[in-house]
Amino acid sequence: MAEVEVPDIVIGRLPIYLRALKHLMEDGQEFTSSQELGRILGIGSAQIRKDLSHFGEFGKQGTGYEISFLSDQISKILNVDRDWSVALVGFGDLGQAIAHYGGFAAKGFHIDEIFDNEPAKIGEQVNGNTVRDVAELVEVVSSKKIKMAVVAVPAMAAQQVTEQLVEAGVRAILNYAPITLNVPDHVRVQYIDPVVHLQRMTYYLA
Amino acid sequence: MAEVEVPDIVIGRLPIYLRALKHLMEDGQEFTSSQELGRILGIGSAQIRKDLSHFGEFGKQGTGYEISFLSDQISKILNVDRDWSVALVGFGDLGQAIAHYGGFAAKGFHIDEIFDNEPAKIGEQVNGNTVRDVAELVEVVSSKKIKMAVVAVPAMAAQQVTEQLVEAGVRAILNYAPITLNVPDHVRVQYIDPVVHLQRMTYYLA
Repeated sequence: MAEVEVPDIVIGRLPIYLRALKHLMEDGQEFTSSQELGRILGIGSAQIRKDLSHFGEFGKQGTGYEISFLSDQISKILNVDRDWSVALVGFGDLGQAIAHYGGFAAKGFHIDEIFDNEPAKIGEQVNGNTVRDVAELVEVVSSKKIKMAVVAVPAMAAQQVTEQLVEAGVRAILNYAPITLNVPDHVRVQYIDPVVHLQRMTYYLA
Repeated sequence: MAEVEVPDIVIGRLPIYLRALKHLMEDGQEFTSSQELGRILGIGSAQIRKDLSHFGEFGKQGTGYEISFLSDQISKILNVDRDWSVALVGFGDLGQAIAHYGGFAAKGFHIDEIFDNEPAKIGEQVNGNTVRDVAELVEVVSSKKIKMAVVAVPAMAAQQVTEQLVEAGVRAILNYAPITLNVPDHVRVQYIDPVVHLQRMTYYLA
């Protein structure tokens, strides 16, 4: 672990670097540079070098970064060189889309439990999971020591579900509900808010 | 329009400020400060003041920002003080979740056209829309002068759909497919990639 705390904004860029490196690797490329990564990602090359320097020396003057090595190192830093178990709460349209989405498991995030409160949905089978009653959430999630959850319930239910997840020991929540969640300091929340992305683009559409 | 180009990263923070201001307004608050916004958002207050200073003087020493005024100003800057017509491509699980999601229309983004390539889906009714054959995309989107689109098709279809959208005159794309889209310089793309958000949190879960 780093001696000095690395700013969260730097941590937030590492998955973006990782994704770009994986794409380059898929294209068969072996080496890259902070300049090339910068061009691909629209980030300054000095920023990329500075971000990576928090964790060590990964490149060589002249040859740049060996892609597979840098990708492995970033995976280790982010703790994504292992599999993670994830609980999904909410099995409406969105929850179903998330449960069927192959992109999570491909990156080591396995949805191992699914919860909903609708009797018609409880007991449904999806990818080897059985949708459980949300009343079982605290017991199941805590006994399985699941630390990550995806919240895909309506806005009005999101805070209550979050409190149950926190009680069960979850420390990282990906929230699709359009509200800000109140959580204790030891719990992280990331928001998926498509409107924010649309609003960022309309600036350029005048 | 600003004389000097405002960095895109600043533009990207404005919707976040706007969302926080709307929440404060809903709570009945009239004034706020860069310090309070910073605390809510986990962004430095100096950064917030600097971001806003690109566009003018919005606050007063002592009283801070009048929330409704600042919110109106940011809405104007972002061009979200008007309604936008959006085309949705893909009517699978995810497309259906997006079509049913009330959060877009509430913020002025109206899904006015939906396209899919599956015969069973074409003709389906949703919120007053009829799902159309994607073969009609270029003609319909260009004749309706729709400038924004949401791509919710499988990864392997996303680039082709994107090219049709660009041909139709779309200039802003919200992409849910897990691939990087190639677009001309005049077209903006924002990515919804939940894995990036999960990977950002696992850093803290070691």
